[in-house]
Amino acid sequence: MPRSRGRRPAGSTTREDILAAATHLFGEHGYPGTTLRAIAREADVDTRLVTHYFGTKQNLFVAVVDFPFDPDQLAGAVLSEGPDRAGYRLAQVVVRMFDDPGTRQSMTGLVRAAASEDDAALLVRDVLSERMLTPLARLLGEDEPELRASLIGSQLVGYIFSRYVLSLPGIPDEDPDRLAAAVGPVLQHYLTGALEEAVPR
Amino acid sequence: MPRSRGRRPAGSTTREDILAAATHLFGEHGYPGTTLRAIAREADVDTRLVTHYFGTKQNLFVAVVDFPFDPDQLAGAVLSEGPDRAGYRLAQVVVRMFDDPGTRQSMTGLVRAAASEDDAALLVRDVLSERMLTPLARLLGEDEPELRASLIGSQLVGYIFSRYVLSLPGIPDEDPDRLAAAVGPVLQHYLTGALEEAVPR
Repeated sequence: MPRSRGRRPAGSTTREDILAAATHLFGEHGYPGTTLRAIAREADVDTRLVTHYFGTKQNLFVAVVDFPFDPDQLAGAVLSEGPDRAGYRLAQVVVRMFDDPGTRQSMTGLVRAAASEDDAALLVRDVLSERMLTPLARLLGEDEPELRASLIGSQLVGYIFSRYVLSLPGIPDEDPDRLAAAVGPVLQHYLTGALEEAVPR
Repeated sequence: MPRSRGRRPAGSTTREDILAAATHLFGEHGYPGTTLRAIAREADVDTRLVTHYFGTKQNLFVAVVDFPFDPDQLAGAVLSEGPDRAGYRLAQVVVRMFDDPGTRQSMTGLVRAAASEDDAALLVRDVLSERMLTPLARLLGEDEPELRASLIGSQLVGYIFSRYVLSLPGIPDEDPDRLAAAVGPVLQHYLTGALEEAVPR
């Protein structure tokens, strides 16, 4: 079957073909099992075009995954109710995001892959720390935004791992809003709390 | 070379032979790559004897890993400075435990393995939740000890994963006591805090 889509601009069609091929292959073979070359073959384009449009496999994955928000715009959503509610809002966004089966499957698969694939570990680190959490911590203007972002990342990755990989008891059956309420103060502590104090003597 | 160790009681020697073989093989091939059968062969005993002494591969691993404490006695150590310091003490115990390269290697390997091996996931869940954290949460007498234990587990597993698998920025270079101070209030919240409140409106 011919790939031509008539009068649509060639650039736009190619980009969409690549996204469709990537969605299909990431879904079928997971992140580590999918190469840019295979995506290019499925989209019937040259691999260099994939690189031209998306740069890296990481970027392409981010473009494909059905995030309920643009990772780069997370901070705005989380800060919408003010800095004192940011931890709770962030917990709520993440917990609800995992209520969607497709998102849950791709994100859990990515965390599983990160345990054995450097490439996947790099992607998780990049999206979670550099694109989502460090900008958020910077906006709040506290000291050590990068450490704060990493501490939040440790709790969020731990939540995904405990709930969907280890199935720790109690967590799987909890209602999402209760979980957000339990985890919210923790994220708030990491976002705006005193990291060196608050230990009673 | 003959295996006889002279006048030592036969039972004790067998148990030690199994432990030595397990230490060697877990270290060499990791948790998922080591079978009870291979350990029995290396120890020159029948597999049923391994089962007799240790029950399961999980139990044998726990006996072999160089925990700086008996998992069943963690609660005592963590509560030694009173309930208000339990979160900080627990963070300190875990962070310091990972300062030891051997412990770090075997525990990180186990968390990595848990991402793809049900058997390893079961072991992490068993040791972390049932043997270490739920008894601790029960001793503190708060409501929902199992959920509290799992929330703590999520932060501890997340700490291991972020620091040693993802290498999130900021965390790897932090000094252990600072990290324990940053994470301590979180564990304290999960141990004794109000899980449904503390969200400002």
